[in-house]
Amino acid sequence: MWTVKVVGLGLVALSLSLEVLVWVVRRRRPKNILNEVLFFPSEITCTEAIFTPSLHSCLCTLPHGVETSFSRLLCHILSTSSSLDLCVFAFSNMDLCRAVLALHNRGVVVRILTDKDYAAITGSQIGVLRKAGICVRCGVKTVYMHHKFVVIDGRLLINGSLNWTVTAVQSNMENVLITEVPKLVQPFIKEFHRLWEQSDPSAYLRSGDQNPAQNRNDVALFS
Amino acid sequence: MWTVKVVGLGLVALSLSLEVLVWVVRRRRPKNILNEVLFFPSEITCTEAIFTPSLHSCLCTLPHGVETSFSRLLCHILSTSSSLDLCVFAFSNMDLCRAVLALHNRGVVVRILTDKDYAAITGSQIGVLRKAGICVRCGVKTVYMHHKFVVIDGRLLINGSLNWTVTAVQSNMENVLITEVPKLVQPFIKEFHRLWEQSDPSAYLRSGDQNPAQNRNDVALFS
Repeated sequence: MWTVKVVGLGLVALSLSLEVLVWVVRRRRPKNILNEVLFFPSEITCTEAIFTPSLHSCLCTLPHGVETSFSRLLCHILSTSSSLDLCVFAFSNMDLCRAVLALHNRGVVVRILTDKDYAAITGSQIGVLRKAGICVRCGVKTVYMHHKFVVIDGRLLINGSLNWTVTAVQSNMENVLITEVPKLVQPFIKEFHRLWEQSDPSAYLRSGDQNPAQNRNDVALFS
Repeated sequence: MWTVKVVGLGLVALSLSLEVLVWVVRRRRPKNILNEVLFFPSEITCTEAIFTPSLHSCLCTLPHGVETSFSRLLCHILSTSSSLDLCVFAFSNMDLCRAVLALHNRGVVVRILTDKDYAAITGSQIGVLRKAGICVRCGVKTVYMHHKFVVIDGRLLINGSLNWTVTAVQSNMENVLITEVPKLVQPFIKEFHRLWEQSDPSAYLRSGDQNPAQNRNDVALFS
């Protein structure tokens, strides 16, 4: 009888410890954090099915149903559910413009920071986005706002060498890094907020200037 | 006596389980993976102490002993111990050139991939690096090699919007993301290898061409 009790108690102690072990392992298991890298140029394919998933067939002559770097990028952007903070030097790609407009139309809060000079060049989609009611702010006048990053829903960072142009997507050798690692995403959220506040037209119009950095001395503000 | 045996066996089972628990937790503890983000423009400071740590004083008029985004970047580059694979669109920054030369002189294997057109512009440091015996290859002629990434010792990735120019470092709004996350680093290692092989002059000179992509049709090679 005593032997049964000994073995029983031993088993209880063991099973309790195993339960604690499983609990600890589960708690410490790293969550599925997205990390992905895309390289360009991307193959030119039909993107219609990405914008209209219910579409059954498309008559255009481009390849269909092919996953490319660009289609992956578009899918990530279209996956936005609440906010999209875009900070990009040049924006002339019409597919990417269509994606941003689609987000805006479905109620996503879109904010765009871009370069003042490049916003005005032929083919820029910045005017189209502004006309649609999207809030766009421009960087200071005398230095390039050369970033190419997006923060999606305050959790996903897309960053790299790729400007949002057709040439960058279809011709150049470029990269895009996509990550949810908080230590990489958080500084970009903070920097976007800083630049957004700094580019507030009401702030520098109140001060009587057209722009807070009319000369190179003001560059120090951004260091 | 039996009670002592019961308690003893229970304690043995418990302590064994706890040892297993500690072992599992230690094995699953995430290693200290470096993740860092730097923003530019960077304050202009003296970099002499970074290149010559034994230096006691410097008489130049720039600020000393200040940690900036640029000094952090230089320190990461100078920390290279075995290999530096650099893939950069424009390279005219003399401090970064000095850092790469220092690595080359101390036996680090340096490989540089750059854009053909930008390698030849006034102020480019590519000629200086080539003269020093560093192996430099140029991307294809008709598309931009627009990357700005470095892989250090096959484990650390530095990537972002920053070209290796003075303007980018001291004036523009730029970013640099530094990471050891393998899922982010490995694709860049693979892409560098692919581009390096593709830009091998012996490969395209054998084929009778001056360059593997003399016309836009060849762009498909890189998709």
